[in-house]
Amino acid sequence: MNFELIHTDERSHARAGVITTDHGTILTPIFMPVGTVASVKAVHQRELRDDIKAQIILGNTYHLYLRPGLDILHKAGGLHKFNGWERPILTDSGGFQVFSLSDRRKLTEEGAHFRSHIDGSKHLFTPENVVDTQRIIGSDIMMALDECTPGDADYDYAKKSLALTRRWLDRGWKHFCETEGLYGYRQTFFPIVQGCVYRDLRTEAAKHVADLGADGNAIGGLAVGEPTEKMYEMIEVVNDILPQDKPRYLMGVGTPANILEGIERGVDMFDCVMPTRNGRNGMLFTRNGIMNMRNKKWADDFSPIDPEGTSYVDTCYSKAYLRHLFISEEILAMQIASIHNLAFYVWLTQEARRQILAGTFKPWKDEMVRRVTTRL
Amino acid sequence: MNFELIHTDERSHARAGVITTDHGTILTPIFMPVGTVASVKAVHQRELRDDIKAQIILGNTYHLYLRPGLDILHKAGGLHKFNGWERPILTDSGGFQVFSLSDRRKLTEEGAHFRSHIDGSKHLFTPENVVDTQRIIGSDIMMALDECTPGDADYDYAKKSLALTRRWLDRGWKHFCETEGLYGYRQTFFPIVQGCVYRDLRTEAAKHVADLGADGNAIGGLAVGEPTEKMYEMIEVVNDILPQDKPRYLMGVGTPANILEGIERGVDMFDCVMPTRNGRNGMLFTRNGIMNMRNKKWADDFSPIDPEGTSYVDTCYSKAYLRHLFISEEILAMQIASIHNLAFYVWLTQEARRQILAGTFKPWKDEMVRRVTTRL
Repeated sequence: MNFELIHTDERSHARAGVITTDHGTILTPIFMPVGTVASVKAVHQRELRDDIKAQIILGNTYHLYLRPGLDILHKAGGLHKFNGWERPILTDSGGFQVFSLSDRRKLTEEGAHFRSHIDGSKHLFTPENVVDTQRIIGSDIMMALDECTPGDADYDYAKKSLALTRRWLDRGWKHFCETEGLYGYRQTFFPIVQGCVYRDLRTEAAKHVADLGADGNAIGGLAVGEPTEKMYEMIEVVNDILPQDKPRYLMGVGTPANILEGIERGVDMFDCVMPTRNGRNGMLFTRNGIMNMRNKKWADDFSPIDPEGTSYVDTCYSKAYLRHLFISEEILAMQIASIHNLAFYVWLTQEARRQILAGTFKPWKDEMVRRVTTRL
Repeated sequence: MNFELIHTDERSHARAGVITTDHGTILTPIFMPVGTVASVKAVHQRELRDDIKAQIILGNTYHLYLRPGLDILHKAGGLHKFNGWERPILTDSGGFQVFSLSDRRKLTEEGAHFRSHIDGSKHLFTPENVVDTQRIIGSDIMMALDECTPGDADYDYAKKSLALTRRWLDRGWKHFCETEGLYGYRQTFFPIVQGCVYRDLRTEAAKHVADLGADGNAIGGLAVGEPTEKMYEMIEVVNDILPQDKPRYLMGVGTPANILEGIERGVDMFDCVMPTRNGRNGMLFTRNGIMNMRNKKWADDFSPIDPEGTSYVDTCYSKAYLRHLFISEEILAMQIASIHNLAFYVWLTQEARRQILAGTFKPWKDEMVRRVTTRL
């Protein structure tokens, strides 16, 4: 993997870059749709590529490990072959889902013991075997196993948790360096900066991560319960230390405003389930604000969903029709909202890139934050 | 509406024709996807048009009357404008759903009294007001209100039921003739032949319907519990009487084999929820037989879903991937299966048309019935 930093904004830390992988290039800043169980929910691969214009998608190691399982993924020749997505894929390590989804999980020095949320079966993720698993999945970008410390953890817990994450990172990194991809193309490995909301822990973690010299670096453990201002502060602390010439990935964040603030602070890559999950519940994000499509006010509004939207659903369906589909619990409602929201998120990051390159990012971003947080 | 009979098969009653409406032409025999609540479930309008190649879709008057309701549909300028489907639409009368879905329904001479399955509110469908409702919906082809007699009804019940259907038909027809469309294009009205499995009742009903001189005629009350051979026998009885120069629509039927047998007996139009409903449950219909996609045998079959299929999903996704999506209860599974099945049903009727025109329908149909009933 290669990263070329094209331009850094003069009035902020916002950056425009290009990531090159064996499955194609990614123009940063970029939003990456989440394809949990080998599918971005309610969206066809063709729509992802042509309508949403996704350049890279995520897969979740925890979900893929349980279903379809490593045997099937290996036989298929990896996830790209399995789901037919030919562009880059990033996988998380599975650690986050172990904590949020599985039953009776337990952390030891060895790794994360857990029971499947599907059938209760027992499993163990270690720093080494999640690398092996991601080798089988064949993602272009693999992630280290870490403990995602809760946003309200006290200092002592956060410090102990970070120490474990650090020891796991060293083991995972070693294993990554000693192994190779299975399918003839290159894979890379991102370490993750944890440290909760504590400046000294984040600083220490960022230094350790920076020293590894990985192709890219991630910031984890944010947007997990801490105040938003703390999140922005931690991004600043970490990005002051992470190398300029490597992409920075802010994991699991967030609202359109969060993403714009992240870009301003030098983040290059984002993922979040918000556009799809909230979309399935009727929430649409647009450049003019947020719409709750279940609201009665749309019942007889026959204007296009989003006249300025970039995907075909925005102009070929009306607000009244989409509201009707949500009220009637039609699957098509979730399909339309998912395409719209993902296309908007991808557009938002790519428009930020254009503004950075044009030298107009800062005023555009300030205006945009105001607009995207409006309730329509 | 106009119907041109192009060719009748020499060795059967199978026919190839062209229906012309103000929203475009329909090549018969044709399968019409069912768009219950203004949406063919899990399918985008673009997919209906370009991938499934649907020439006409159905709407359900009962559902549309309840949601979004006539006020919204009227304000929208009709269903075409509301859901963005620009080709022909046929609506049923709502009678069938009153019997199958609503609570505490009651038939009187006046009409069908029922309570909404959504909120329990009280409503009345009369032969006249379902014409008015379909005027507001703006379907190209409207259907008469009838009682769909159960397939196991005894003779006395069937006779009484048919008498009521006949009186309702005369009232509905009169009202149709006295009213006009609301949106500047022409609508037509199909009467429905009932009579359960009784030859004399079906004969009497078919004669009455034929005498009206409508643009097209429908056969109802089949595939509702009677033996399949009885269904085929009744189609023959009715089609011997219905005029040759008008299209014949067999309502709510059926399996691919049912459709082929119907075509052989001179039916021109079909609709059924089977391709979408069964598809959402994992059943795929193909020209080589039926596949249950939840079956373990597909788990590591990485070949395309249907190499001979006509829609893009058939070759861009594998059987193993589709099985995984069903097992993981992903929405995309239902989307893929719905597109595949609908494209197959439309292809089946259009291929029948080509075979009729080529004079090869009979042997093709016999072979095809054998193939489509195979379990893969």
